[in-house]
Amino acid sequence: MADYFSMDAQQRGEELERLRKLYRELAAEGLKLDMSRGKPAPDQLDLSMDMLKIMDYRGETGIDSRNYGSLEGMPEARRFFAGFLGAKAEEVIVGGNSSLNMMYYLIELGWRQGFADSAAAWNTYAKPKFLCPSPGYDRHFRVTEYFGFELLTVPMLPTGPDMDVVERLVCDEAVKGIWCVPLYSNPDGYSYSDETVRRLAAMETAAPDFKIMWDNAYGVHHLSDHPDRILNMLEECRAAGHEDRALMFCSLSKVTFPGASVAAMAASRRNIDYILKNMFPMIISYDKLNQVRHVRFLKDMDGLAAHMEKHRRILEPKFKAVLSLLEEGLSGCGEIARWTKPNGGYFLSVYTHEGCAKRTVQLCREAGVALTDAGAAYPYGVDPCDSNIRIAPTFPPLHELEEATRLLCVCVRIATLEKLLEKT
Amino acid sequence: MADYFSMDAQQRGEELERLRKLYRELAAEGLKLDMSRGKPAPDQLDLSMDMLKIMDYRGETGIDSRNYGSLEGMPEARRFFAGFLGAKAEEVIVGGNSSLNMMYYLIELGWRQGFADSAAAWNTYAKPKFLCPSPGYDRHFRVTEYFGFELLTVPMLPTGPDMDVVERLVCDEAVKGIWCVPLYSNPDGYSYSDETVRRLAAMETAAPDFKIMWDNAYGVHHLSDHPDRILNMLEECRAAGHEDRALMFCSLSKVTFPGASVAAMAASRRNIDYILKNMFPMIISYDKLNQVRHVRFLKDMDGLAAHMEKHRRILEPKFKAVLSLLEEGLSGCGEIARWTKPNGGYFLSVYTHEGCAKRTVQLCREAGVALTDAGAAYPYGVDPCDSNIRIAPTFPPLHELEEATRLLCVCVRIATLEKLLEKT
Repeated sequence: MADYFSMDAQQRGEELERLRKLYRELAAEGLKLDMSRGKPAPDQLDLSMDMLKIMDYRGETGIDSRNYGSLEGMPEARRFFAGFLGAKAEEVIVGGNSSLNMMYYLIELGWRQGFADSAAAWNTYAKPKFLCPSPGYDRHFRVTEYFGFELLTVPMLPTGPDMDVVERLVCDEAVKGIWCVPLYSNPDGYSYSDETVRRLAAMETAAPDFKIMWDNAYGVHHLSDHPDRILNMLEECRAAGHEDRALMFCSLSKVTFPGASVAAMAASRRNIDYILKNMFPMIISYDKLNQVRHVRFLKDMDGLAAHMEKHRRILEPKFKAVLSLLEEGLSGCGEIARWTKPNGGYFLSVYTHEGCAKRTVQLCREAGVALTDAGAAYPYGVDPCDSNIRIAPTFPPLHELEEATRLLCVCVRIATLEKLLEKT
Repeated sequence: MADYFSMDAQQRGEELERLRKLYRELAAEGLKLDMSRGKPAPDQLDLSMDMLKIMDYRGETGIDSRNYGSLEGMPEARRFFAGFLGAKAEEVIVGGNSSLNMMYYLIELGWRQGFADSAAAWNTYAKPKFLCPSPGYDRHFRVTEYFGFELLTVPMLPTGPDMDVVERLVCDEAVKGIWCVPLYSNPDGYSYSDETVRRLAAMETAAPDFKIMWDNAYGVHHLSDHPDRILNMLEECRAAGHEDRALMFCSLSKVTFPGASVAAMAASRRNIDYILKNMFPMIISYDKLNQVRHVRFLKDMDGLAAHMEKHRRILEPKFKAVLSLLEEGLSGCGEIARWTKPNGGYFLSVYTHEGCAKRTVQLCREAGVALTDAGAAYPYGVDPCDSNIRIAPTFPPLHELEEATRLLCVCVRIATLEKLLEKT
């Protein structure tokens, strides 16, 4: 097979015809596959069913987790998440079932009122701004979009956000923060280098109350014997004299049950005091029974790591299958696409030739394979290069994933040839 | 024993001396009792332990409640709460563990952006206003206080808020809503009469987007064979042509576990659509596993009523003991206090002679009995008559409750005599 880029128009037309025939055959199978959702598969959820047998509700200090109280979370849960996030227990708030909900709350709080280190509420700017390393997590970007922030795209590199761009943009006082998924980023699976973390912590920002939304969503979701490691953002901020800058989040959604787990955050003591004081009117307490249940089940960081190994045994073959089929299905025809090869997390990115992502996703959909909308990982849903496709290999069974990836490769090829033929 | 009001100063002084001696004896027992908290007692929580044995997570329509999705709630949970609230399933959102959290969210939404029927966000008023039938639930009032509303006190009558006052106040466009605990109100235990409900539904309000925050917190918490009944606020509003006025709430916090239950709301379809659309950026989904667990356990309205009978068997003797000891301890000395006798709910009110509530609570505290701060049930924590004391009989064991009530009676007597002697 020849390089699409060095083919002439006739060769491209013939190759396109061949692929369209193949596409029609695949489409005729009546596929109904979904690679769009970053959801654990049912067999992953089954790994935690024993947790539901835990009937012990009494906290280690005697607190009855069934009753009201302890807004900050059960002491053992604070200690557990302190271990997860690399903070002290008193720097942790343990919340409900959603870390996104905690992040939303903090953006809303900053927007409405500001933080302890704010000169004014963020909404005193007609259009406050937020940095969005892209491609990134659409639900992050949407929170800030909902509150009327201008979303500023920062290119995502294999080492994290392009720090030259970040350092330039934070000279604007209206820039109030940055969204980060520092380990196994969504969707690339990139992890922030030590230099990136240190520069984020140390940089001078025009806004005195600049916040790093540090969503360590995949902090324990390794898929390799040589997992990525990141520095501790709270510690780095503290060392740089900016300890109120870091707001760190994690959840057990992809450890136990996505809809019924426990989320937590960590920040400086000053931030935690301020946040708890403001949370007081909002809720009496989170589900402490579920907090106790989770800590009893996972025990500690070793218990958590052992549990995540079980997830890895389910997920690693899926990621490997996708990577090997991409290699097989997209090679030998020139550099029509590249893709990321994460050591963990829930996603990988396929980057098509410029201008081919939307068309690829459309072709897939029309043949019965759902992918995340092209552009979804960019602010306002627009990928300026129309190149990124987010692949979520976790939910479908392996054989469906294989079928879907094979179809994807055919669609990438078709879209590329169509684009090249347009130009000729 | 003589009427305190017809005693002369010397008689009052002698009676006070006698009571102070009694008080010192009681205080010397080193009591450590708490009648301040509207919490279920541990034996009430034990009634629901079998719920934790339910391992079935699959919804009736096949939804895996463990995973992401279904922000509006599990279908069976929506139907269950539709029965509870008197609405259609599609008019219900099932939330997390806190109805207060849902109410907070809706006040925040109205404040920030308004509702579907709003001409503008409520925060376009420098000082929007909210009606607070008082005495009422302090955590309601605090939500609106936190968002900068001016809290307008409406006298609470045995039939609900004084509707003459309400109808006068809602002629002000800045008045955006009213807090209501319509059945067994906190703290009086009063229930809204049919006339009150109909007038609330039908009244003309200057604000087109006036909202009734209808917190049916004690909707199934009866303590009598002849329970109070209230009209359905959503239906009454609809009949009056104001169907977007009612936002109704309930929770299972005092049915199963206060910290780990399920809350829900109901409103017009237009409101529900608007609210769900706005909730989308905030959270992926609530804890559906807990929703399924609760519906499997309680089954339906009959199952719920049967479960609440078990609570009644624990609570009714406590309420009866308090009422009988109040009768015993506060009679024979003139009308120094009156108290409410609820058919359900979690509280009752003692009304002291004007100006005696704070002193009574202080005397109790100094002798080791914690009561809710006097005034807590009024906007800004100030009872203009300094008369209301909220009694929460549910949490302490019966014998502690009896001791605490006996002490309370002595303290009411002392405070009354002190006040009368002041005047002479």
